Amino acid sequence: MIERLAIIGVGLIGGSLARALRGAGAVGEIIGCGRSVENLELAFDLGVIDGCTRDPAVAVEDADMVFLAVPLGAMRGVLERIKGKLREDAVITDGGSVKGSVIADAAAVFGEVPARLVPGHPIAGTEHSGVGASFPELFHNRRVILTPLPQTAPDAVDKVRAMWQAAGARVTDMDVAHHDAVLAATSHLPHMLAFGLVDLLARQHDNQEIFRYAAGGFRDFTRIASSNPVMWRDICIANAEALSAMLARFGEEMTDLAETIRRRDSEHLLEIFTRAKTARDAYVDGVVPPGEPS
Amino acid sequence: MIERLAIIGVGLIGGSLARALRGAGAVGEIIGCGRSVENLELAFDLGVIDGCTRDPAVAVEDADMVFLAVPLGAMRGVLERIKGKLREDAVITDGGSVKGSVIADAAAVFGEVPARLVPGHPIAGTEHSGVGASFPELFHNRRVILTPLPQTAPDAVDKVRAMWQAAGARVTDMDVAHHDAVLAATSHLPHMLAFGLVDLLARQHDNQEIFRYAAGGFRDFTRIASSNPVMWRDICIANAEALSAMLARFGEEMTDLAETIRRRDSEHLLEIFTRAKTARDAYVDGVVPPGEPS
Repeated sequence: MIERLAIIGVGLIGGSLARALRGAGAVGEIIGCGRSVENLELAFDLGVIDGCTRDPAVAVEDADMVFLAVPLGAMRGVLERIKGKLREDAVITDGGSVKGSVIADAAAVFGEVPARLVPGHPIAGTEHSGVGASFPELFHNRRVILTPLPQTAPDAVDKVRAMWQAAGARVTDMDVAHHDAVLAATSHLPHMLAFGLVDLLARQHDNQEIFRYAAGGFRDFTRIASSNPVMWRDICIANAEALSAMLARFGEEMTDLAETIRRRDSEHLLEIFTRAKTARDAYVDGVVPPGEPS
Repeated sequence: MIERLAIIGVGLIGGSLARALRGAGAVGEIIGCGRSVENLELAFDLGVIDGCTRDPAVAVEDADMVFLAVPLGAMRGVLERIKGKLREDAVITDGGSVKGSVIADAAAVFGEVPARLVPGHPIAGTEHSGVGASFPELFHNRRVILTPLPQTAPDAVDKVRAMWQAAGARVTDMDVAHHDAVLAATSHLPHMLAFGLVDLLARQHDNQEIFRYAAGGFRDFTRIASSNPVMWRDICIANAEALSAMLARFGEEMTDLAETIRRRDSEHLLEIFTRAKTARDAYVDGVVPPGEPS
């Protein structure tokens, strides 16, 4: 049970966690903090938060749990602002899509990464932003990855794990660098391809016509290109090494594929598409290796 | 009204057209033709077709409308088989995703492209195959592009247009090369990216783990990678020039984007993502230029 939860950034992720925890009876009071008064008022009107402030230092007063749900580029500023204002036993966690940068920010602000800071990442979201898009089931059966460090206090990890479980999520631990590499592949890279494709087509002079003849596959494929540009700029910069490496590799793959098509190498094309279809169908069927609860 | 419709290839597209036309009372008898006896039996049991044969030459006997819904690589063989077996007034049309190759096949088989052949392409589909996946609403409000040639008989074009309209589609005409370029951008390229991404990840040694941590965005993004590999191999080869050019260009874009990320060029990243989000949101909102019915 969390007595007082401070949520810094009451958007899709912060708002959905608040709603899930309240629905589960797992939280006493929820204080929301954000830059937009309008969004905070909406959060209050929707019953997502019990009180609000625009100042993170005020929000964290007396909070036993602090959840940072701001874009990665805003993490350091928030940490600077709440430094010295926290309850001694307060646990801090975050929802950033890159963990290395949050840890680096915390080390820079606090001198070393605090023992009661538990870096975390809920693998959930939609292309929409703001508290109006939040809903309590967002984390149901979704994975949350925690990346505790050697100095992280076990009871703080337990408390964060319990919080996400109360929200319906399945929690696993992972090494920081491994998390950032896996997410570069499964989330950051696809977002770059979707943004890149839509941008390429939008820049063509006949772009209106191109979009007019786009079918349902295009709509699904590009859904993630409607995501928040600021959030994704921050993710790119925070995970620049892993992501740019994946992206360069993908670029080479596409250059090779273009050459395979130009050569009309029927056999090789069929091999690639069959391997991809098999992997994708298995993924959708939820095939997981033995010993892994699905 | 079509008296007797021969559908060569009773899969998702052929089966859905049969169901739509029957629902609209726009067809008398439907003869299905395909290589898989099992699929034909299913089509018959589902009431999609009234009769069936594995021989295209038999299927087209007495048909006033012939719809070719086979993979592009099978078009030429079917045309060879039905040559000389058609009713004199029979109209032939097809559902191939590339029009230049179908026209080239027809020219090769018939000496010149027959006046009663109307090349067409319904911009609709799902990632599933076979008559079991077909449904009568597939073409509702979807675009069908016809690419008649100068020698194409106007009354044949009218008959094909009326058929698609009866199935609920919106029909437009387009130049052959333009069709193939537009589709390379909006459909063929996205499929290559989805197949390529899944294949790249499937080939990584920790692929099970990578797929395990994939979120909802990944599922949508890669849906089209579950499409029929044979059909897509054929599309690549049929549209090799336009598609390989688009793909090579996209590969360069991704190499540039990797460099922009590596440079941590915040401003340029935000510009790309914002432009893409704006275009994608406008596409979803159905923004079309003045004069274009939406």
